[in-house]
Amino acid sequence: MTRPTIIFDTDPGLDDAVAILALLGAGEQIDLLALTTVAGNVGVDLTSRNARIVCEWAQRPDIPVYAGCERPLLRPLVTSEHVHGRSGLDGVPLHQPEMPLQDKHAVDFIVDTLREATPGTITLCPVGPLTNIALALAKAPDIAPRIKEIVLMGGSYFAGGNISPAAEFNIFVDPEAAAIVLRSGVPIVMLPLDVTHQVGASSARIARLHALANRCGPLAADILISHERHDVQRFGANGAPLHDPCVVAYLLQPDLFKGRRVNVEVETASPLTLGATVVDWWGVSGRPANVLYLTEADADGVYALLTDCLARLP
Amino acid sequence: MTRPTIIFDTDPGLDDAVAILALLGAGEQIDLLALTTVAGNVGVDLTSRNARIVCEWAQRPDIPVYAGCERPLLRPLVTSEHVHGRSGLDGVPLHQPEMPLQDKHAVDFIVDTLREATPGTITLCPVGPLTNIALALAKAPDIAPRIKEIVLMGGSYFAGGNISPAAEFNIFVDPEAAAIVLRSGVPIVMLPLDVTHQVGASSARIARLHALANRCGPLAADILISHERHDVQRFGANGAPLHDPCVVAYLLQPDLFKGRRVNVEVETASPLTLGATVVDWWGVSGRPANVLYLTEADADGVYALLTDCLARLP
Amino acid sequence: MTRPTIIFDTDPGLDDAVAILALLGAGEQIDLLALTTVAGNVGVDLTSRNARIVCEWAQRPDIPVYAGCERPLLRPLVTSEHVHGRSGLDGVPLHQPEMPLQDKHAVDFIVDTLREATPGTITLCPVGPLTNIALALAKAPDIAPRIKEIVLMGGSYFAGGNISPAAEFNIFVDPEAAAIVLRSGVPIVMLPLDVTHQVGASSARIARLHALANRCGPLAADILISHERHDVQRFGANGAPLHDPCVVAYLLQPDLFKGRRVNVEVETASPLTLGATVVDWWGVSGRPANVLYLTEADADGVYALLTDCLARLP
Amino acid sequence: MTRPTIIFDTDPGLDDAVAILALLGAGEQIDLLALTTVAGNVGVDLTSRNARIVCEWAQRPDIPVYAGCERPLLRPLVTSEHVHGRSGLDGVPLHQPEMPLQDKHAVDFIVDTLREATPGTITLCPVGPLTNIALALAKAPDIAPRIKEIVLMGGSYFAGGNISPAAEFNIFVDPEAAAIVLRSGVPIVMLPLDVTHQVGASSARIARLHALANRCGPLAADILISHERHDVQRFGANGAPLHDPCVVAYLLQPDLFKGRRVNVEVETASPLTLGATVVDWWGVSGRPANVLYLTEADADGVYALLTDCLARLP
Repeated sequence: MTRPTIIFDTDPGLDDAVAILALLGAGEQIDLLALTTVAGNVGVDLTSRNARIVCEWAQRPDIPVYAGCERPLLRPLVTSEHVHGRSGLDGVPLHQPEMPLQDKHAVDFIVDTLREATPGTITLCPVGPLTNIALALAKAPDIAPRIKEIVLMGGSYFAGGNISPAAEFNIFVDPEAAAIVLRSGVPIVMLPLDVTHQVGASSARIARLHALANRCGPLAADILISHERHDVQRFGANGAPLHDPCVVAYLLQPDLFKGRRVNVEVETASPLTLGATVVDWWGVSGRPANVLYLTEADADGVYALLTDCLARLP
Repeated sequence: MTRPTIIFDTDPGLDDAVAILALLGAGEQIDLLALTTVAGNVGVDLTSRNARIVCEWAQRPDIPVYAGCERPLLRPLVTSEHVHGRSGLDGVPLHQPEMPLQDKHAVDFIVDTLREATPGTITLCPVGPLTNIALALAKAPDIAPRIKEIVLMGGSYFAGGNISPAAEFNIFVDPEAAAIVLRSGVPIVMLPLDVTHQVGASSARIARLHALANRCGPLAADILISHERHDVQRFGANGAPLHDPCVVAYLLQPDLFKGRRVNVEVETASPLTLGATVVDWWGVSGRPANVLYLTEADADGVYALLTDCLARLP
Repeated sequence: MTRPTIIFDTDPGLDDAVAILALLGAGEQIDLLALTTVAGNVGVDLTSRNARIVCEWAQRPDIPVYAGCERPLLRPLVTSEHVHGRSGLDGVPLHQPEMPLQDKHAVDFIVDTLREATPGTITLCPVGPLTNIALALAKAPDIAPRIKEIVLMGGSYFAGGNISPAAEFNIFVDPEAAAIVLRSGVPIVMLPLDVTHQVGASSARIARLHALANRCGPLAADILISHERHDVQRFGANGAPLHDPCVVAYLLQPDLFKGRRVNVEVETASPLTLGATVVDWWGVSGRPANVLYLTEADADGVYALLTDCLARLP
Repeated sequence: MTRPTIIFDTDPGLDDAVAILALLGAGEQIDLLALTTVAGNVGVDLTSRNARIVCEWAQRPDIPVYAGCERPLLRPLVTSEHVHGRSGLDGVPLHQPEMPLQDKHAVDFIVDTLREATPGTITLCPVGPLTNIALALAKAPDIAPRIKEIVLMGGSYFAGGNISPAAEFNIFVDPEAAAIVLRSGVPIVMLPLDVTHQVGASSARIARLHALANRCGPLAADILISHERHDVQRFGANGAPLHDPCVVAYLLQPDLFKGRRVNVEVETASPLTLGATVVDWWGVSGRPANVLYLTEADADGVYALLTDCLARLP
């Protein structure tokens, strides 16, 4: 496997922060061109600040961070402050970042970068609402065939919804953006709740991060503890689902996951099921496959990998 | 637990046939007032014939059978002949039944019976599309508080759809009927695909039916084999799901099943998700519970119980 | 033209009352089998009472009145008390009627009557929500080819909505019932807002009713004055629209109206446009015509005709 | 009234071409910053070519033309070649334009221009699908309060649809874009079919253009003749509706039109009514006014004004 070259599109967010730390810990295994931020768990001002805070925790102020869309395409922004707190990173001490935001809009960065690069070399990794990616595809459809693939965290089929009975948060927040991405013809890998619910942040797993002899390991552990506070009644002793870091794990070691190439569409019409990802797992619809939809994860393998990444950070 | 008094509303259908046999085998444990038939797996002419064939297999021509609705409330009938065959009971020899259909329409029978009975004594058990039940409730809303409960086979949440990626067959065929039932205020127990996929008709389980020293046991075994022919590639060695007989098992021994009191609504607006049962398993919607939604079954217990019932038949 | 034999399905309602009076005044020109009542402008208890009050005004206690559905098929009842008042007939003195309601449910009466009559001889005339008609068609689809035609007041295309920006009241209250009727294959004549807005109850027209030398003429005038109170700001000096009596005028003299045979479908999926009647006036959809959709009325002719009918009453 | 400064967003298109000619003929009365093009009547390659052809007809190669979106935000492009022909300007001789397209994407031009200008000085005039305007607002919501107003041709309420029974073409093609624009908070003036159907291109009106002693007048006449060929059976002797030039007439002389400040929403959820503009003409919804919705035009005044503009061209 060649080293993936990626743009990581994110709305930190507690689990986003762990994902970014893991990404930076992966070092040369992943060629990270930039972080792009989007409104989601909290507003884009905060996600843009938080992305830079996380880079500075890892002593990587060289990572370019581009701020993107401040709200979904059509709908008012729904945030997830009940999970991530007002700051988006509640539960750990935050500082004012020194590294700057880049001047360019995230969407322009994505479009320009894809146009300048050799086609088929860049992977987009959105782990928040898909607004930036969709807007790039809508304004510049010529980039679609130039994208290697889109590896995203979002959706749910066998696991039920989290923000509503029918929908997972990232897709629910901007379902029209998700529709644009799913219809784009770009190869897509989805890491949905089906997977992330299998990768519980158990006490033992968190303890191993806490025991790392650096700053970022225990920090990541604290973040996961803060994250699961919201979900503890729901998920109990197995730990809360681990969402966004799964994308990093997949980039590094895709064989930790299993799934199926299937058709996935997103509900944009009905209030009751808005944002539901309709996965044709059994092939009953006759619609062509557009997604590698992952449903199984080697949880121990994922945690070992992530712990390894985090151990390499300062 | 007192002996349940029921009206069994059915569209036989292979698994319906096994359910009816089990019901008749249950003997005095269940007070069966009548079978009512509905269009679903096949048209209502065939389901009405098939219901009587099954009664005659069990030497119970005394069971009143009332024919009901020939199509869904609003939509064209979708059948399931790819599973049940043109006859609705393909794979076993069929005869022309001698016992008559009752004169009354099933909907009138349901309404009249509920009005004449002591309130709270009759349970409705629909295992096909909910057209008859919905029409009774629409025409005679006064029966709603007189129904003890509705124990139905239908819906899916964690198990995905079967007729479409989003929907289970019974609900999909008449989603408006399902909406009427779910909003009726009547206590409802749902046995969805979540449960029926756990109760696989494995070779061993089928073999035990085959070994029964009567006529109906091996017949039920043959029906299950015919039923699973369609699904064998999907479900493999664990056997196809066992749908409708679960309702009979629940009536006899509810503690074989586990679930949760939750809100369930049905999608009627969007073609993509039509018929999806939106189950608020995690209580995120704030909508009041209207259903005991079952998700777990003691599969060995269910088969032991059903085998026991079938053993009592001729 | 042969004398029409009709069942008049109504939710009085001020304009319903005028329509019933006109119908009774038409005498032998129309063979009125019965009034059937439905929930709409007010609840069915009141519409059933009001229908009988109106018959007694006309000294016709012999007219059978059958009470029908107390609420729409799927949705909570929306009433129109802001127009018709709490009683459904606010603005005129009401008495307790002496004539009885018939024992049978309106839906059963409709079904039984159609089954007993020579096919193609009976016209259904619903001027409220279509719940009764839809339920009859759903439970007994065999009656569809036996109905001569359905002449209904409802819908709007070029006139905009009244209860919502997109929908006319009768269709909005039970859009699923309207869908059942529109898909039934029965010949349908619609008298929508497009027509009824052309038939304003102007002062001069009301004055002519007031001047009739009987009791029912001035009574009808008072009812129309009460009816337009709600709409006066909207419609000004030309008078409020005259809805339900148009159906009676059409039965007596169809050439007072002009329209086109077109396809009409009803919106049941989207909250924004719920109950909109989508009329393919220009034939752009390719869908087959199912309705004679009337858009023009000879207003003076309509009032002359109605005044003539009312003049014949006591 | 001060001279309006505008960006004219267009998909020529026959009536677009007449609108552009009128605009150029208006000379100093309107400060035209640029034409931006969009996919609609035909693809964006053709609309971008056609916009330049029209400028060259008017000997105005100095007008900057920016190409915009090649397809709607979410949906496949629906074109109107049955009206405008394959070229988008069928019926008149076309040449290969010499003037260049600008390098910038139309959306970037709109965003940059609004950011650089004094707030409240620039009017956007879209006469095709609203994709460019919506994308600009989605990517750069800060421009919304900087736009003076949006004067658009699109929608229908009392006039019925043209591309479908429920929808007007421009809104139907990109209903999500329309939703973004309608929810943007920008003051909006809509010139819908309600208006444009009142401004028929009658033979007499076309003859007066034909009689102009320049090249562009007869050319515009030929274009209108070609345009109405499609609609002649529908509209007869009064002439086909005149759509896009109404926007120019409104800019020059708004008192030629009458309307009402009302709430307008667009249907994006239901296939049956997709793209319908739901106009709360009677104020029954309680939703706040967001549009000046025009329903009346002084047709003679409009033609006099347009003829005057065209007369000033070469």
